[in-house]
Amino acid sequence: MKAAIFEGKGKVAVKEVPDPEIRKAHEAIVRVTHSAICGSDLWFYRGLSPQGERIGHEFMGIVEAVGDEVKDIKVGDFVIAPFVISDGTCPECKAGETRFCRHGMFFGTNGYDAGQSEKVKLPFADGTLVVVPGGKDLGDDKLRALLPLTDVLSTGHHAAIDAHVGPGTTVAVIGDGAVGLCAVAASKRLGAPRIFLVSTHQDRANLGTQFGATDIINARGDEAVKQIKTATGDLGVDSALECVGTPDAWETAFGAVRIGGNIGFVGVPHDVADIPVSKLFGSNVGLKGSGASARHHIPELMKDVLDGKLDVSGIFTETIPLSEIAKGYADMDERRDIKVLIKP
Amino acid sequence: MKAAIFEGKGKVAVKEVPDPEIRKAHEAIVRVTHSAICGSDLWFYRGLSPQGERIGHEFMGIVEAVGDEVKDIKVGDFVIAPFVISDGTCPECKAGETRFCRHGMFFGTNGYDAGQSEKVKLPFADGTLVVVPGGKDLGDDKLRALLPLTDVLSTGHHAAIDAHVGPGTTVAVIGDGAVGLCAVAASKRLGAPRIFLVSTHQDRANLGTQFGATDIINARGDEAVKQIKTATGDLGVDSALECVGTPDAWETAFGAVRIGGNIGFVGVPHDVADIPVSKLFGSNVGLKGSGASARHHIPELMKDVLDGKLDVSGIFTETIPLSEIAKGYADMDERRDIKVLIKP
Repeated sequence: MKAAIFEGKGKVAVKEVPDPEIRKAHEAIVRVTHSAICGSDLWFYRGLSPQGERIGHEFMGIVEAVGDEVKDIKVGDFVIAPFVISDGTCPECKAGETRFCRHGMFFGTNGYDAGQSEKVKLPFADGTLVVVPGGKDLGDDKLRALLPLTDVLSTGHHAAIDAHVGPGTTVAVIGDGAVGLCAVAASKRLGAPRIFLVSTHQDRANLGTQFGATDIINARGDEAVKQIKTATGDLGVDSALECVGTPDAWETAFGAVRIGGNIGFVGVPHDVADIPVSKLFGSNVGLKGSGASARHHIPELMKDVLDGKLDVSGIFTETIPLSEIAKGYADMDERRDIKVLIKP
Repeated sequence: MKAAIFEGKGKVAVKEVPDPEIRKAHEAIVRVTHSAICGSDLWFYRGLSPQGERIGHEFMGIVEAVGDEVKDIKVGDFVIAPFVISDGTCPECKAGETRFCRHGMFFGTNGYDAGQSEKVKLPFADGTLVVVPGGKDLGDDKLRALLPLTDVLSTGHHAAIDAHVGPGTTVAVIGDGAVGLCAVAASKRLGAPRIFLVSTHQDRANLGTQFGATDIINARGDEAVKQIKTATGDLGVDSALECVGTPDAWETAFGAVRIGGNIGFVGVPHDVADIPVSKLFGSNVGLKGSGASARHHIPELMKDVLDGKLDVSGIFTETIPLSEIAKGYADMDERRDIKVLIKP
């Protein structure tokens, strides 16, 4: 089969790799129908993070084979894969923290396939995959709306949950990438009546507005903070959603959140300074974040996607075949696209 | 009138000071019926924190005079004073964060009296004081149960709120001082079915059990963490309440809380190391804490005290007249008493 291979900084190619075969009783093989390039893939593409050869962690598809112990997933099922593999049985999985599964692993490691590929073999099929009722017959528009559940929509939702967004909460989303835009949609879904999106890109701001942002802050840093403070009666927002991971974004989040508010952070932190406890004690600002436990969040969010209440498929600004993946990476790297969808 | 005066490390005396007089229209004068010594008073008593001459921030009493602008507080009212003065009108006060009032101040500063005193003049009477319905006629047992609202019970509640304690939450309370014991009672009140109290003192552990602790962890540090982990199926607790403020207590809190759980911290931090963002991102542990907005919490908690559902008066292990305050400080400093109540 064909799979995307990371060959070094700025180089992604499609090559022939061995077809996967079931070797362990908890494994499954999925024939990929939809996959995507993630903003976090750009970190290694740009030479900033290490990465193995096989890449991609956002995909959906049709189950082609399962091991003998797999009970909940059946051949022919249409499934969504969260971006981290989880066994579904350890204490953390049972607590809903599947991102931190004791036997968890990333796609493309331990001899398993990654998502930018024709097929993916994965372990712990029952613990990891989520079956989509009526999946393959839903039509491509609905399937495109489901694909963000694999990572970015679950991650945006996680930011909102960790920042305790709910009915009545005012929200500021820092970051207008796919995750930030999904965080806007997730905040709206959770009942936030006022959602600021910090965005200096008109196309992203437009999507943000479509997803539920009530106020676009077309500024950065101190100026963005000033505008948010002014618009909230000199108070700040209840919840700031940090969806970038840079020191600047963190500073904006701390500037925008009110005394006693909450910061939810999901941008993988890069060079963010340690937090003095006195800074928190002196503001009663709550801090919580991590990679999302997508496997835990998907069933709840999927229901709303299937019901037509949640659709962030607008983040996919380009659709390409797997063979053109190099172009997809270049387009995302140079911000010509927000997010690229791949149809193997 | 008489007031306690801090004369230097280990020295507290009662001296004659000028009677207070109303000078500003938002002021009130309260004749103190009950006050208390706070664990945080020991920091300056031990020479670890600076402090002015006048001391005490936990008191209740009868209103003796009010300025012309005071509307909600009337002469003769029995009132509870939270440990921080707040105007009740700034954006933070309106958001319920009265601890961070823009015009807030501590008792004993800016020419105002402190609580270990016969009378207290304070500013922003309407924003600060809470009237107790039927106050002076409630009887001393009830009044003793109300006094902890001024600080320690509100602070224990704040720890539980910041750690998101609610029905079904498993809780570990780190610290068996008055605040920790109140945090146990607050967690029980909020619906926590299982509450671990880390305590190596039998008398405090007994009070903790009386207040709702289901498990006493008679150990410290790693051993305490190990026992909590074992008792929670190798997971840890949903909420850890840090009620001390030392590096050891913080380490126990981080050790006891589960992946994805929450730490609420109310111990004034002393020498606690900065928190790496990666430590939080790698665990999805939430962190939130500060001094309590007692003024905001008191009405809700007071209702349960008046209804007889909440009584932590057992923390007062000694009652003394103001004239014997030096003995009260010494007894608390040497841990002969958990908390000392003063009747001027």
